[in-house]
Amino acid sequence: MPEEAAPQKAAPGEAVTVAELSESDLLTRIFPRLAMDSRHAAATLLGPGDDAAIVAAPDGRTVISIDTQVQDQDFRLQWPNGYRTTGFDVGWKAAAQNLSDINAMGATATSMVVSLTLPRDTPVSWVEDLADGLAAGIRKLGADSCSVAGGDLGRGREISVSVAVLGTLSGGSPVLRSGACPGDVLALAGTVGRAAAGLALLESDAGIESLAPEQRKLVALQCRPVPPLAAGPLARSGGATAMLDISDGLLRDGARLARSSGVVLDLDPQALRQLSEGLEPASDLLNADPMEWVLAGGEDHGLLATFPPGVQVPPGFTAIGSVQALGESESPGIKIAGHAADTGGWDHFAH
Amino acid sequence: MPEEAAPQKAAPGEAVTVAELSESDLLTRIFPRLAMDSRHAAATLLGPGDDAAIVAAPDGRTVISIDTQVQDQDFRLQWPNGYRTTGFDVGWKAAAQNLSDINAMGATATSMVVSLTLPRDTPVSWVEDLADGLAAGIRKLGADSCSVAGGDLGRGREISVSVAVLGTLSGGSPVLRSGACPGDVLALAGTVGRAAAGLALLESDAGIESLAPEQRKLVALQCRPVPPLAAGPLARSGGATAMLDISDGLLRDGARLARSSGVVLDLDPQALRQLSEGLEPASDLLNADPMEWVLAGGEDHGLLATFPPGVQVPPGFTAIGSVQALGESESPGIKIAGHAADTGGWDHFAH
Repeated sequence: MPEEAAPQKAAPGEAVTVAELSESDLLTRIFPRLAMDSRHAAATLLGPGDDAAIVAAPDGRTVISIDTQVQDQDFRLQWPNGYRTTGFDVGWKAAAQNLSDINAMGATATSMVVSLTLPRDTPVSWVEDLADGLAAGIRKLGADSCSVAGGDLGRGREISVSVAVLGTLSGGSPVLRSGACPGDVLALAGTVGRAAAGLALLESDAGIESLAPEQRKLVALQCRPVPPLAAGPLARSGGATAMLDISDGLLRDGARLARSSGVVLDLDPQALRQLSEGLEPASDLLNADPMEWVLAGGEDHGLLATFPPGVQVPPGFTAIGSVQALGESESPGIKIAGHAADTGGWDHFAH
Repeated sequence: MPEEAAPQKAAPGEAVTVAELSESDLLTRIFPRLAMDSRHAAATLLGPGDDAAIVAAPDGRTVISIDTQVQDQDFRLQWPNGYRTTGFDVGWKAAAQNLSDINAMGATATSMVVSLTLPRDTPVSWVEDLADGLAAGIRKLGADSCSVAGGDLGRGREISVSVAVLGTLSGGSPVLRSGACPGDVLALAGTVGRAAAGLALLESDAGIESLAPEQRKLVALQCRPVPPLAAGPLARSGGATAMLDISDGLLRDGARLARSSGVVLDLDPQALRQLSEGLEPASDLLNADPMEWVLAGGEDHGLLATFPPGVQVPPGFTAIGSVQALGESESPGIKIAGHAADTGGWDHFAH
């Protein structure tokens, strides 16, 4: 909807906002921050600046996923405990959760394209910080073959970051949700419950300044999750029969894998207790049950995978249960030590 | 940010909203509407339902673009002239503008992934209508090798539709913005100014019910643009030296091509007058200058391309000017019959 008006100038002392820059000026601020070395950029055959980008797909297939983070839904700019979400946090999290989707197929990310929706009063520095966080996420999470190939900018009433990520299976077969077989070992790479504990701290009235280092670390894992990106391709080459990314919680995502495969997943209570270790700094402070976070907490972006019996579980994975055949008139789902577990959890619309 | 609450029930007589359905129930309503025949779906090796989709990239490269439409920025749910934007309109336009980016590279679309952000009070029927419009856009615009490979749903305060579209060059070279050479013929496929005339009608107080068929047709081209999808690959195989999609207006997008190529584009006034034919039903009613729409109007998604002298311009293209070398101390840009043209126009932030 073309309308004409001059860019607005900030009052003295105010932060420069995106309303004061043209779209091309803003892109000029962003793209240099996303520049990657030749190793990261190897798959990007044509980068930003044309109508579309071109990315190598060496085995004749592209793995593709898309995900959006929206202000006040996926993050708050200002949390009840006083923490202010930085642009860096949002950029990092956008990288992490999208790279995790590629990881969960057993694939390696090759590129991202990013669509940013920004309110006019968004400080330019916040957007630059977002670009820095996106680039840092790609680099530090170990997505060594990935760079940002292109993007798009637009206006809106709330900040929204959509990322589409591409990946390659390097000639291998994808690890789907549907391949788990009775007798398989159920294993986890990465963590569960940390991001949820961090979220509980952010939403509490325990001021961010008062938190101890171990508590701040949990907050950091909510704001800047660390998915185990080496684990996905390792699981694929190690013979994983099924895999998915835990973004909505162990019970809920586990139930998805169970339904896709037509099996029951039986979790080992001892393994669950071990997964809850490290959550005490939050659970003690908030008088909460850490097992809730382990079972229902999302956003750590750990990988849940199944491996045939007798196969060595790859480095980074820990066995946490087993895959069982459906009993007579039994539905696919999750058990804990043989008892049915509630499969409720996070739903984007039901609250 | 996981929170727990039961889905809300609508009061009797109210439309069912997305708040009343779980995410998986809503996806169950959407995906069947996006189902395509085997020809459209041929490139989708793994469709919706896993962590990512897999799309064929037969020549070892993927063309990729991303674009977002946001409520009250790219469309209004309710226009000043009384027209209500339908979900079908938004779905169609999302398909059209993304397919156009692939077209502008000389490529053919193979798949889309879609991220939908919806306020809780969005009627489910509106979202179903959006899915129908997306599928109809793909089918009726002639994207015969394209289907929807996956997607993502989330909540927000405003409706936002992000689409990433993939395409293939079928072994050919992309047509970039940077290849225009002095002496080339400048040509256009599709229309310019129609969508802008339709926008002016939508933003006027001339009630939608009172409009004549030719006026409504212009409104329809704003809401459901018809990019010339056959023209991009034809231009590529026909030897086009440069090409781009006119989404922000002939002057503004033409200047981008001129800058990328380091040339001047000289538009033929007679050709511009011909392009303005068909706009009178709107310009007469609104007492507007149709040449404004031809030069500055975006969103028809016509293609601007350059062809070497002596090459037959492919079917669907019309010559509208020529490519000239830069004069001494001259900057790249647009002229009309040898006189510099203003290159202002739509900017996402500067208003």
